[in-house]
Amino acid sequence: MEEKIKQLKSLQAEIIALTRIVNLLEWDMQVNMPHGGAEERGEQVSLLRRQAHEKFTSDEFGQLLAELAPLAQQLDPDSDDARMIQVCQREYARRTRVPANLVSELAETSMVAHQAWEQARAESNFSKFQPFLEKIVDLRRSYADCFKPYEHIYDPLLGEFEPGMKTAEVQEIFTALRPQQVALIQAIGSRPQVDDSALHQPYDPQKQWDFGIEVISKFGYDWNRGRQDKAAHPFTTSFGFGDVRITTRILPEYVGSALFSTMHEAGHAMYEQGIAPELNRQITGETFSLALHESQSRMWENLVGRSKPFWQHFYPRLQSYFPAELGNVSMESFYKGINKVEPSFIRVEADEATYNLHIMLRLEIEIALVSGEIEVKDLPEAWNSRMQDYLGITPPDDALGVLQDVHWAHGYMGYFSTYALGNLVSGQLWEKIQIDIPDVEEQILQGQFADLLNWNRQQLHRFGSKYEAQEMVQRITGSKIDPAPYMRYLTNKYTDIYGL
Amino acid sequence: MEEKIKQLKSLQAEIIALTRIVNLLEWDMQVNMPHGGAEERGEQVSLLRRQAHEKFTSDEFGQLLAELAPLAQQLDPDSDDARMIQVCQREYARRTRVPANLVSELAETSMVAHQAWEQARAESNFSKFQPFLEKIVDLRRSYADCFKPYEHIYDPLLGEFEPGMKTAEVQEIFTALRPQQVALIQAIGSRPQVDDSALHQPYDPQKQWDFGIEVISKFGYDWNRGRQDKAAHPFTTSFGFGDVRITTRILPEYVGSALFSTMHEAGHAMYEQGIAPELNRQITGETFSLALHESQSRMWENLVGRSKPFWQHFYPRLQSYFPAELGNVSMESFYKGINKVEPSFIRVEADEATYNLHIMLRLEIEIALVSGEIEVKDLPEAWNSRMQDYLGITPPDDALGVLQDVHWAHGYMGYFSTYALGNLVSGQLWEKIQIDIPDVEEQILQGQFADLLNWNRQQLHRFGSKYEAQEMVQRITGSKIDPAPYMRYLTNKYTDIYGL
Repeated sequence: MEEKIKQLKSLQAEIIALTRIVNLLEWDMQVNMPHGGAEERGEQVSLLRRQAHEKFTSDEFGQLLAELAPLAQQLDPDSDDARMIQVCQREYARRTRVPANLVSELAETSMVAHQAWEQARAESNFSKFQPFLEKIVDLRRSYADCFKPYEHIYDPLLGEFEPGMKTAEVQEIFTALRPQQVALIQAIGSRPQVDDSALHQPYDPQKQWDFGIEVISKFGYDWNRGRQDKAAHPFTTSFGFGDVRITTRILPEYVGSALFSTMHEAGHAMYEQGIAPELNRQITGETFSLALHESQSRMWENLVGRSKPFWQHFYPRLQSYFPAELGNVSMESFYKGINKVEPSFIRVEADEATYNLHIMLRLEIEIALVSGEIEVKDLPEAWNSRMQDYLGITPPDDALGVLQDVHWAHGYMGYFSTYALGNLVSGQLWEKIQIDIPDVEEQILQGQFADLLNWNRQQLHRFGSKYEAQEMVQRITGSKIDPAPYMRYLTNKYTDIYGL
Repeated sequence: MEEKIKQLKSLQAEIIALTRIVNLLEWDMQVNMPHGGAEERGEQVSLLRRQAHEKFTSDEFGQLLAELAPLAQQLDPDSDDARMIQVCQREYARRTRVPANLVSELAETSMVAHQAWEQARAESNFSKFQPFLEKIVDLRRSYADCFKPYEHIYDPLLGEFEPGMKTAEVQEIFTALRPQQVALIQAIGSRPQVDDSALHQPYDPQKQWDFGIEVISKFGYDWNRGRQDKAAHPFTTSFGFGDVRITTRILPEYVGSALFSTMHEAGHAMYEQGIAPELNRQITGETFSLALHESQSRMWENLVGRSKPFWQHFYPRLQSYFPAELGNVSMESFYKGINKVEPSFIRVEADEATYNLHIMLRLEIEIALVSGEIEVKDLPEAWNSRMQDYLGITPPDDALGVLQDVHWAHGYMGYFSTYALGNLVSGQLWEKIQIDIPDVEEQILQGQFADLLNWNRQQLHRFGSKYEAQEMVQRITGSKIDPAPYMRYLTNKYTDIYGL
């Protein structure tokens, strides 16, 4: 068995090396590449992606897994090797069940759909995107059918982004969450609005950059194993455990954009930097659960980065970067400004209180689409009526509504709910942290984050993808994903800010 | 035959894609990579290098070439396809003649030799490097023996960097050149030295960067298909015809470093940007002759960038960047300063007049080493006595002497002469340019470089590696590589500057 495990590890190492090289090719596309490089770069990405896919779905890999399946029973089911074999089996099955022509049809459709979406969004004309989205929905249904029998046709789609998660579970979670979120927003809406105008004025881009660097350095982002660059759409990427990079976007007239995106991406990156070195180059050293990933980015961005103790520590520093802009703005006023709640059309600009509702809307629509309960042509109306129900506003056009996200144009269905699940998990982790590190808020107030980062490393990061999201959350907090802690967090916070 | 040519092209395209991805991995190592990324990056580079090598030396590739050999006789020998097959055959032979264990022994030895060299150079202690260099010389002799029969054991080594070039040819060229270079330097040495102190004072790095960008933009470096970054050792690299990048190094107290390195690398890059698009992804779209490559970098750096017309145009601009530093320095004085001739120990810092002698010394030593005429242990003495003969100075220690270059530590033997050959070719091209574009100097004085770049594109760039260096130079100038034009250029220039 040892020899076969060694072979499996060596195959995995090669596949992972190829995907990490693809990550570099794509990072460079977003960060550095001149316009003229696009065509060949696309081909280079395809070449290595194809190689990685071929190796992952090769007979050699399948044969090894088949031979290891009975032998693995002898291993401690919690051991690194047993979990590695299990995750390999899951991912091998996911990749081999779908016929190659469906994979390539999805890829090709996404390519043209993406162009159509860009144009449709620019013109705010959903009908231009509609036929492409119809094709994508069809293909995604065929994709799901490759995984029959399933409990729900949406399960295989969800599982692509959140392995092991079932539609019924997510629906149960969101059904509990929805009325509480709606009620919270209504309560906030009945209170006087906070003033965040001080956040929206010219802020020197270099100083914004420098302040963000200062903050995440204190968090514990390891610069010996990473760097930050600028990109139009901030993201985190890894070329190996020793090189996990982040990007940020600076808006010259809004101090929040670069800062919170830097903290968010640092949260993702510290997760990757914290995976146990012994899992490196194995599938369990890769991250699959987007909910767990997002729990980390959201924690550092919101539960830490938008908290009062954080700003009690950092606000004087920020004022020293921007004395003219913030010298006369009180910490309290700034704190309220960055936590302003206001129903708005665009998900990526949404505050903590309204964000999850943007997600629920998308989840419901996706499930209805793939279940055949609504048709693509009825999407704008379905979208707008839910926006009215949940947030009390109706998008004036499709660009601010159903056309805003790139995910469907990419061919993705099943992605969105992981964002909200990440929020919920961050709330659960936070309640456990307050038990395990009783003075965590005092530490944050002192600008000390070592215990907090170490807790996350020990409890979560180091395991990589040994455990799926529900099992991981259960192991850490004693219960599965549960919206109550996050709702308690939101309620406490906004009770203070809005005097509910 | 058409079908087989198509297959050959498709195989080449994949090999070239892999090598261009390696180029990106290596560019990023030099430009961006955090320290922690080194280990895995090294493995990623090895993985793709191995893949490219395996494909290039595969039975499939060899079989195709064998089948095409007789058929190719029917093609116009000057056609793209005929030349492509020919270059494929040459490169296939070069790669398959050397057994895999010798290749890997060379790679492993170079790795440890490089570390030993770094330490030896830091301590200026040749004996620490000696055993590794002895091993490398042995391996390089075994390497050469794979190509028996040869006229000279050094031929296969030279051919790695300058395909088709023979040791006898280079020796003939350098034998003619040596006494003229020595005489020129002695003549210059007898004249009063020029004062270049104005070049050595603090110069704002950002302004140095900006001025370099302005210059190469006027040259015609295509920013839609490239970019410039900073690196410790400036270099040019290509990820495809649409993405040819350069790097530069800024010294805060010397205005010449960034500027001339930027022009030099832009010369390399414009060559790559100028290869005919129809050769892209074929072996003839890659560049093999370092002499031809260096003829371009040297032309833009020296024959253009250190010329009087160039500075008649650009000096007022440079003064406007640095009014405090250069406002009171005349163009004439600046021009003399950047052309100061002074025998010195370090090749990469040598001026145009002394540079080739640094090369000749290395060529003679390499040939003597692999021929067994001298032993590695006698190298410091051989080096120092030649330095005294050619340049009239003796290095005070090995760091300033025999240990200065990284090439041998990399396992390279046969590289150096291409630098000098490039100089010579640049001189030949320049004489032809003055015939074909009689007002070229007037154009440069006006800051116009379009005709000059276009001439190089039409005469040289577009052919890629269809022709080896001697044939290419013959086609353009009507004669093989010849030192006379370059010597005429140097003599004219320094007669003016030093009043010979």
